[in-house]
Amino acid sequence: MPAQTQGYFTEENSADVVVGQIADTTEPRLAKVIEAVTRHLHAAVKEIEPTQEEWLAAIMFLTKTGQMSDDWRQEFILLSDIFGVSMLVDAINNRKPSGASESTVLGPFHVPDVPELPMGSNICLDGKGHPMLIKGRILNTEGQPIEGTKIDVWQTNDDGFYDVQQKGIQPDFNLRGVFRTGADGTYTFWGAKPRFYPIPDDGPVGKLLGSLGRHPYRPAHLHYILEAEGYETLITHIFDPDDEYINSDAVFGVKESLLAKFDLIEVPDRIKEEGAEGPFYEVVHDFVLAPEA
Amino acid sequence: MPAQTQGYFTEENSADVVVGQIADTTEPRLAKVIEAVTRHLHAAVKEIEPTQEEWLAAIMFLTKTGQMSDDWRQEFILLSDIFGVSMLVDAINNRKPSGASESTVLGPFHVPDVPELPMGSNICLDGKGHPMLIKGRILNTEGQPIEGTKIDVWQTNDDGFYDVQQKGIQPDFNLRGVFRTGADGTYTFWGAKPRFYPIPDDGPVGKLLGSLGRHPYRPAHLHYILEAEGYETLITHIFDPDDEYINSDAVFGVKESLLAKFDLIEVPDRIKEEGAEGPFYEVVHDFVLAPEA
Repeated sequence: MPAQTQGYFTEENSADVVVGQIADTTEPRLAKVIEAVTRHLHAAVKEIEPTQEEWLAAIMFLTKTGQMSDDWRQEFILLSDIFGVSMLVDAINNRKPSGASESTVLGPFHVPDVPELPMGSNICLDGKGHPMLIKGRILNTEGQPIEGTKIDVWQTNDDGFYDVQQKGIQPDFNLRGVFRTGADGTYTFWGAKPRFYPIPDDGPVGKLLGSLGRHPYRPAHLHYILEAEGYETLITHIFDPDDEYINSDAVFGVKESLLAKFDLIEVPDRIKEEGAEGPFYEVVHDFVLAPEA
Repeated sequence: MPAQTQGYFTEENSADVVVGQIADTTEPRLAKVIEAVTRHLHAAVKEIEPTQEEWLAAIMFLTKTGQMSDDWRQEFILLSDIFGVSMLVDAINNRKPSGASESTVLGPFHVPDVPELPMGSNICLDGKGHPMLIKGRILNTEGQPIEGTKIDVWQTNDDGFYDVQQKGIQPDFNLRGVFRTGADGTYTFWGAKPRFYPIPDDGPVGKLLGSLGRHPYRPAHLHYILEAEGYETLITHIFDPDDEYINSDAVFGVKESLLAKFDLIEVPDRIKEEGAEGPFYEVVHDFVLAPEA
């Protein structure tokens, strides 16, 4: 135990006194993290100057956030999401070289071991919504196609729900698929135009959003995980730039470079060429993978 | 809903983007608090640069802290205590003019409606430990005695437990009392020498303390609430300066001015004079109350 060389507690030296109690034998990374947390926490309290009642309200908010969580619901992750912290941690851990596609949050709806499908397959198994053709190329930062990229995609259906949120209502693996690029690095598949949807907002986090005049919606997007040997795995979304919530994603997942173009194709020749039954949306989007560090 | 004038999320502008979503209609104090929390939180994350695994470990720690809490146990208050935040909030809300006695945390063991006793009473009802005579004066900042001060005191017994922690073992109201000063502002009562004791350490907070090489103990102290008309109510402790944990209170409650003197009195004349049966401890401590703002 170190001597409390900072002296006794005062408003001025509060963080020093607390940090001074961390034993020298503490695992260095933990010591560094707790010191930083302590200093920023004390700085925040000194700026805010909470009353005792406000401090107790904060304690009760955090308590309820923990108590709302279980095996199926993680309210503290939601809290991190709506404060932009999940996105910040993602950004810090996924700094990309110039020209490479940017990452965004994984989200809670990824499913492992989705069946691999031939290019051009339709992953929309419930037949709902506007048909959508999604295609593009997987490239390296030199603009060369990457062969053998595993493309894992998932999205909501036209009601704004993922299959796993509606088991027994949506077909299994609805709007999920795994594809693998050939030598030309291209990909193509059919889905349905995704919909905006709310994060769970019936808990303390939803109540806080409401108090801040914020809505719980995420703008429509498609999720991607792109894996290729010799490249950094990319976890990202592409977004519908015309979604009404595109400038106010409840979890701050939108980045400029992740805006795709969702074009409504009504030209009869194109409809015929693609074998569609009528007008459809088309999204053409290339991804650039960073080389493995 | 304000336009997201800060643009889309980047690592650099992350806090601005999040703060930019707070609606103009938000209650001003809440808006200010959430803005400050957001900015300090993002600054902390940028300094720490947590890995995804570390971030998830923090989420799980907070979740368990909430889930450990119930009507009897408040693990988030313990967390606030061991980070010195409870003391900091106390300090901010109890800035005293020069010469006035300082405050410290209330703690969870105060009991309302304790019977008022005549000066000189013995509040040690279980007969355990070293007898202790506590006396002093309640003064204003001009050094004048304050008549009619209500003195509410409580302390652990010789085993380091408050009566409410050992219902059925300790007598009701053991080592608690309310006294009222006369014209001379003096107080005097008998208790027992208090003992150091641990904060509850069988939860996530105790585990964190252990990881930091910190112990869970609070040095021996007596609690006081002093109330007098025309003066600010003072919630404080006085501490035994010879306690082995005096320089490392787990909740940082010790302030320089709260160190009392615990003298062992063995002189036969004094023992006889005070009507004691043998050697006893004596604590003489004056309190100075600040005028009401």
